[in-house]
Amino acid sequence: MRVVQIGIMGMGTVGSGVYKVLASEGANIAHKEGFKIKIKKVLALDYSIEIPAEKKAKNVEELANDPEIEIVVEVMGGIEPAKSFILKMFKAGKSVVSANKQLISNYWPELEHSAKETGAGFYFEASVGGGIPILRAIEDSLQANTIHSIYAIINGTTNYILTKMSEEGREYGDVLKEAQKLGYAEADPTADVDGFDATYKLSILASMAFHARLPVEYIYREGIRNIIKRDIGYAKELGYEIKLLAIAKRIDNDIELRVHPTMIPFSSPLANVRDSFNAILMNGSAVGDIMFYGRGAGDLPTASAIISDIIYAAQLPQQKYATFENSSGKVSPILSFEKNWETGYYIRLRLLNRPGTLSRVTKVMGDFGISISSVMQKDSQGKYATVLFVTHKAREQDMQNALHVISGLPEVNKVGALIRVEE
Amino acid sequence: MRVVQIGIMGMGTVGSGVYKVLASEGANIAHKEGFKIKIKKVLALDYSIEIPAEKKAKNVEELANDPEIEIVVEVMGGIEPAKSFILKMFKAGKSVVSANKQLISNYWPELEHSAKETGAGFYFEASVGGGIPILRAIEDSLQANTIHSIYAIINGTTNYILTKMSEEGREYGDVLKEAQKLGYAEADPTADVDGFDATYKLSILASMAFHARLPVEYIYREGIRNIIKRDIGYAKELGYEIKLLAIAKRIDNDIELRVHPTMIPFSSPLANVRDSFNAILMNGSAVGDIMFYGRGAGDLPTASAIISDIIYAAQLPQQKYATFENSSGKVSPILSFEKNWETGYYIRLRLLNRPGTLSRVTKVMGDFGISISSVMQKDSQGKYATVLFVTHKAREQDMQNALHVISGLPEVNKVGALIRVEE
Repeated sequence: MRVVQIGIMGMGTVGSGVYKVLASEGANIAHKEGFKIKIKKVLALDYSIEIPAEKKAKNVEELANDPEIEIVVEVMGGIEPAKSFILKMFKAGKSVVSANKQLISNYWPELEHSAKETGAGFYFEASVGGGIPILRAIEDSLQANTIHSIYAIINGTTNYILTKMSEEGREYGDVLKEAQKLGYAEADPTADVDGFDATYKLSILASMAFHARLPVEYIYREGIRNIIKRDIGYAKELGYEIKLLAIAKRIDNDIELRVHPTMIPFSSPLANVRDSFNAILMNGSAVGDIMFYGRGAGDLPTASAIISDIIYAAQLPQQKYATFENSSGKVSPILSFEKNWETGYYIRLRLLNRPGTLSRVTKVMGDFGISISSVMQKDSQGKYATVLFVTHKAREQDMQNALHVISGLPEVNKVGALIRVEE
Repeated sequence: MRVVQIGIMGMGTVGSGVYKVLASEGANIAHKEGFKIKIKKVLALDYSIEIPAEKKAKNVEELANDPEIEIVVEVMGGIEPAKSFILKMFKAGKSVVSANKQLISNYWPELEHSAKETGAGFYFEASVGGGIPILRAIEDSLQANTIHSIYAIINGTTNYILTKMSEEGREYGDVLKEAQKLGYAEADPTADVDGFDATYKLSILASMAFHARLPVEYIYREGIRNIIKRDIGYAKELGYEIKLLAIAKRIDNDIELRVHPTMIPFSSPLANVRDSFNAILMNGSAVGDIMFYGRGAGDLPTASAIISDIIYAAQLPQQKYATFENSSGKVSPILSFEKNWETGYYIRLRLLNRPGTLSRVTKVMGDFGISISSVMQKDSQGKYATVLFVTHKAREQDMQNALHVISGLPEVNKVGALIRVEE
C-alpha cells in the first residue's frame, strides 16, 4: 500500500488534533482511500503532546529537503514565520495544507503564485468554518451556481458570547471573562470580538464563492463590544436574535462585504446556531438557500478538515484553489466595492418624554427617505423615554446622515444603539 | 476546449431543470472547469420544455450506441424501464448520473456490479437531499471521521405538512389537500406521507456514511398520517417540534435504522428546518455535530446536484461510490440490525378521572423499567382526563409491552398517541 509521508509545522491545539485523529482513524482512512498517511517530521517550538524524538525536526530545512515528504501541514498561525516556511515548501515542490486564515486572506496572491511555479498544491479548507467542508462544497458541489449571497456565523467566540448573553440574560464583560477562563476566548480577545477573525474568513470564503479576489481591506468591520443585554432583550421582543454576521452580496458588479452585529428573525436557520457553532448560509442561482453548520474550531474538527485536504492533496497533487485568476493581487476591474449597502436598522434613542418628540425624529428619517416599520416606547416614566425604531431597508449612508441630524435635535438625549437588521 | 457530450433520459421537472441550468450557467461552468457540457440526445415520452427535434432520441439504443456520449443522466424515476436503461449505459461503458432513490436503494449491488464491469462511473448525489451535497461531503470531506449517527429531515412534503400544522394550527388532512393543490404533494401521497421516500434516502445515506450495505427492508418505517394538531400543540408546550426524522445510529456492530415522527427540542438545529427544506445532522468522531441544510427537491436544486455529478464524472470517469464492498448484495456479517432501539417517548392517554389512576399507570411503566421524566394533565373536567407522559430513554420493546398492559387497565379509556422523543 502506498504511504503518503507528511510533515507538520506547529504542534499546538490543531497540530496535536491532526496527530490524534490520524492515530485513531488512520486504519479506516487507509482502508477507504487505499493509502496510508504517515507523519514523518514535526517542526515546533513547543509540543502539546508527546512526539517521538526521531520525528522532531530541528529546522524547517529538514522538512523542505526531505524528498519523502509529499505534503506539509502548516498549523502555526500568524504571518511569520508561517509565510516564509510555506514558501520554502512550495519552492521544494511540496503541497501545503494550511488552516491559517490570517495569512491566506492577506497573502493569497503571493502564496498562489509561488505554489503555481512548482505546481504544488495549496489547500485550506480548515481556514474557514473549522470542520465544515464549505470551500470544498463551493469548489466541487456548487459549480452549477452563481452565488448571490453569503450570510455566515464564522467566529465561534463571539457566537458563544452572544448566545450566553441571550439565553442567560448576562452582560458582555461578564460572559467574556467566563469564556476566557474556559479557554473559549483569548486573553487579548481583540481578534475575535472586534471582528478581525471574521473578516479574514469572509475574505477567503467570498473570494472562493464569487471567483474574484476580495481583500480584507474592503470589508466593513464592527465587533460585538457595544452589544448590551438590553438590546438583546428588545430584539427578542421584536422577534430577532443578534448574531455577528459576515455578509457578502453580489449586486451586478458591486460586492458588499461586511462584518457586524446583525438582528435576524427567529425563523432564519441562522437564528438557532448556538454556542461556539458556525454556520454558512448561501444563496445560489440553482440550489437556492443552502446552509452548512458545524464546529468552527477545536482540535478534532479542524483536524477533520485538514486530513480531508491531505487526502485531496495526495490524490490530486496540483494546485486546486485556482479556478480564478487572482495571482496578480489586483482586484478585478469589473468589480466595485459597495460601501453604501441597503439593510434594515434597529435604532435605540433616549428622547425627552414630551409631546411632539416622536414626530420630530420620524420627520428626519422621512427626510432621508427612511421608512419606519415599527416604533416601540420603553421606560417612559421619567423625564426621558427609551424609544426603539425598526426601519425597512435603507441605504447605510442615509441612515448615518439621518442619525447625525437626529443626534443634534434638542429632544434627543442619546443615540443608544444602531444594529443592522437582515430579514 | 474539450466538449463533454451527455444524454438525458427523462424530461420531467428534474430533466428540464438540468436543461435550464446548463443553458444559464454553461458558460460559467466552462470558464471554471475548462470544458463545455453539451446535451446531445434526450430520451423521453413527454417533453415539459421545448427540445430541438434533432436532440430527441427515438429509443434508448440511440444513446447507448452513440460513441460521442460520455455521460448519461437518468431522471425518469421508478424501477423500470430506468433500471434496464441504466444497465445498457453501463454495458456501453458510459457513466451514469441518477437521481433515482427508489431504484438505487433497492438495486444498488446489481447496479454497482454492472458499472464496475466496464469501469463506468455511477453518481447519485441528487438521490438524497436534492441540492444538498451530502454524499460528496461524506465521501470527500469527512474521510477522517467514523460516523456515529445521522438525524435527517429528507422528505420535503412531510416537512411542509408538519410545518404548516405547527405554525398555522391546522389538521393533517386540511394541509395535505392544500399541498396537493400547490403541487407539493402527489395525488397519491403514500410514498411521502407513509415514509417510503425517506427510507429509500436513508438507505443510501446510511450505506455511504457507515460504509456498509443497509437495505431498505431493515428500516423501521412509520409515517405522519396519525399526527394531529393537538399533539403538535402539546409538544410545543413541552418544548418540542415534531418532525419526520430518518435516523441511523451505529452502536458497536448494531445499526439502528428508523423513519418515524419524532419530537425534538427547540434548541436542536433541526427544529428550525421549515417548509419543504431538508437537513441532515450527523455526528462524526472528529468533526462532532455537522449539519447540511437546503432544498431537498425541485427542478433547479436537483439540477445543481446532477450537474455537479456530471462535472465529477467528466473529471473522474471511473466508478466513484464504491469504497465499500457491497456488490455482493449481502449485508456485512459484522452488522446486526437493531429493532429494539432506545429513545424517549411521549404518550398521550385518556384516563378515568379518579384517584389512583395515575399510580396504576405509572406502576406498569416502572415494572417495565421505564422512567418517567414528566406527567401533564389536560382537560380534566369530565369523566375522563387526558394525561401526557414523557419518558427518559427506554427500550422500544419495553415501551410496547408496557403500553399493551396499560391499554388493558380498566382505568384506561384510550392510548391516544405514541411519539418518539430524541433529545
